[in-house]
Amino acid sequence: MTAPAPAPAATPPPPYWAVIFTSLRTPGDDGYAQTAAAMVELGARQPGFLGIESARGDDGLGITVSYWESLEAIAAWKAVGDHLAAQRAGRSRWYRAFTTRIARVERETVFAASSTTARAPAADRA
Amino acid sequence: MTAPAPAPAATPPPPYWAVIFTSLRTPGDDGYAQTAAAMVELGARQPGFLGIESARGDDGLGITVSYWESLEAIAAWKAVGDHLAAQRAGRSRWYRAFTTRIARVERETVFAASSTTARAPAADRA
Repeated sequence: MTAPAPAPAATPPPPYWAVIFTSLRTPGDDGYAQTAAAMVELGARQPGFLGIESARGDDGLGITVSYWESLEAIAAWKAVGDHLAAQRAGRSRWYRAFTTRIARVERETVFAASSTTARAPAADRA
Repeated sequence: MTAPAPAPAATPPPPYWAVIFTSLRTPGDDGYAQTAAAMVELGARQPGFLGIESARGDDGLGITVSYWESLEAIAAWKAVGDHLAAQRAGRSRWYRAFTTRIARVERETVFAASSTTARAPAADRA
């Protein structure tokens, strides 16, 4: 996927869910950039979408983390037709290797310039 | 932090924990690269460390995800003296903004060339 606006995603207080997608591309573009941008746009319109962060370094390793309200929202996005087609092309053409991890975000600390906010479910703050 | 070997981390079957650190740097290096590399090395020697992935794109957004056996391992690493000093320098000098999220990894799919492995705790496979 391509990079959205360069900033940490503005997610709500936890808990919520993260999909951590770490990948190594195959050489060349081969339609990747256009589809990746389309998937970022389409994903952002899905129910339960909370935000996305994406970076790919000079060594070729890319990390995209998308944030979701629930496991059900993640499952629904995974099953969207155009996204299924992109996933198939990803496996057959665009990625040498990837790992997808689904994780429940329990705590979050936000730092900006001279302010910091630690956020956790009420039960964790006691 | 700097990029390790460019590959998705070889983590064990879930569950385990992820620390997702998304950041925007301040301009210039100012000692950052050296400390970041030292912290990657030091972190990898901590009890409960499982792996690390890191990427920073041309737009300046960086994502580092480190993986851990337990919340206790994450807390212990956060409290290591040299790491505390690096965290202080990060807030005062190196980062314009960052968000740290602690998440419990529940499911993992690994794709490499023509093989795929989906891994989840035994209870989730039923």
